[in-house]
Amino acid sequence: MHILVTNDDGVTAPGLLALAQEMRSLGKVTVFAPDKNWSASGHVKTMERPLRVKETILADGTPAFASDGAPSDCVALPLLGLIEEPIDLVVSGINPNANIGHDVTYSGTVTAAMEAVIAGVKGIAVSLDSPEGHRAPLDYSAAAVVAKRVAEKVIADGLPEGVVLNVNVPYLKESELKGYMITRQGLRVYRDALDVRMDPRGKPYYWIGGEAPTGVAENGTDFGALSQGYVSITPLQLDLTHRKAMDVLKEWNFR
Amino acid sequence: MHILVTNDDGVTAPGLLALAQEMRSLGKVTVFAPDKNWSASGHVKTMERPLRVKETILADGTPAFASDGAPSDCVALPLLGLIEEPIDLVVSGINPNANIGHDVTYSGTVTAAMEAVIAGVKGIAVSLDSPEGHRAPLDYSAAAVVAKRVAEKVIADGLPEGVVLNVNVPYLKESELKGYMITRQGLRVYRDALDVRMDPRGKPYYWIGGEAPTGVAENGTDFGALSQGYVSITPLQLDLTHRKAMDVLKEWNFR
Repeated sequence: MHILVTNDDGVTAPGLLALAQEMRSLGKVTVFAPDKNWSASGHVKTMERPLRVKETILADGTPAFASDGAPSDCVALPLLGLIEEPIDLVVSGINPNANIGHDVTYSGTVTAAMEAVIAGVKGIAVSLDSPEGHRAPLDYSAAAVVAKRVAEKVIADGLPEGVVLNVNVPYLKESELKGYMITRQGLRVYRDALDVRMDPRGKPYYWIGGEAPTGVAENGTDFGALSQGYVSITPLQLDLTHRKAMDVLKEWNFR
Repeated sequence: MHILVTNDDGVTAPGLLALAQEMRSLGKVTVFAPDKNWSASGHVKTMERPLRVKETILADGTPAFASDGAPSDCVALPLLGLIEEPIDLVVSGINPNANIGHDVTYSGTVTAAMEAVIAGVKGIAVSLDSPEGHRAPLDYSAAAVVAKRVAEKVIADGLPEGVVLNVNVPYLKESELKGYMITRQGLRVYRDALDVRMDPRGKPYYWIGGEAPTGVAENGTDFGALSQGYVSITPLQLDLTHRKAMDVLKEWNFR
């Protein structure tokens, strides 16, 4: 079992280290991550510039690869052959914030796992629903154990074709977790606001500011599970076709 | 009717101009586009740096806004209030290449339209299925007319909630188009290959190279419609939940 571990926060992120360490109990681990933070970077294929790859070491002294590409590039490069040994599973994370609802298309963590699935390799994204405004170093230990358990299941039972697993873990001790819930993607509520400022030369610049997003804690959704203390596992697909809307649009008459 | 026109190829792209000109027959048009090419950039929310916005003019002398943000930022900023007048519809394009199958999560053209829909505004992405290796300036006239017709329909009949329209137009004269087909997302076949080169100092760098992607021309799909000379209109949703996989995963026993 050869597991590729990546993230969108960069190779020095503590969530990546916690994930890599836990995955090592399941097989050989290759860490291949961006050399900088790519949060909310979306699904990228870097084609207009070449990419560099450096060998580096994680804080525990183990080797890793760092690339100036996006998270999805850090999956594409190894799968295209930069890493010779075939990869059986890609696990991305642990993201320091939840990736729920509409976050999934923005999220570098999730789109890295999507990149794996597009290439025919199983992909899991793992995120920690840390409390808003949490300043101290986050404790990734429970989320790392959850990631291992989910990966074990995927290795043992497989996954339906084309499915990306989006795993979100409440910020609780492992013993406090209520259990695992298979969920649907819920509704994110973004509270972005435009923050206009003037530079020292009197010209405006714009921050996408506002409060952190919240969500609708509906039963059966990712956000609902987290708010009840459950690990949320949402199977995502890459076929975005809205089948019901097809029937509506077929009534349109263009000619 | 106030229409925001954007793209992922940058404010100087001829496809944007063709789209903006055609949209003007339907209402007031504001052009707000990136100041550079963001192809295959995915769904981005730029939060780690502020964004600049400049007033510029298109090749036909009409005003436009250019931002150093990603295509989705160029939708978020106006909708967050940078443009005061409320926006009724966002049309993104015209992309010089088709956006079909798995392209939709990578595509800046499509994710710009997604950004609109997440903000509760109707969103349409328009792409031209130009022939591979086409060198001469592309003729966007038929695609622009198609964009206008689809936008007219959306304005007249509305769209089911949460639906992004992904429109792809064959590279034909308008009179040669076979018609319009409501399609599902098809299968893209990527032919990426790793292209390893040595820099002048003997260090490797990596291009994501290979041949242009192709697709499976199945009936009823985006690629199938294009290959038969039809305009493809695929309704996309932002809920990526794989419902059938939920039932499979619910059989998993974690404890």
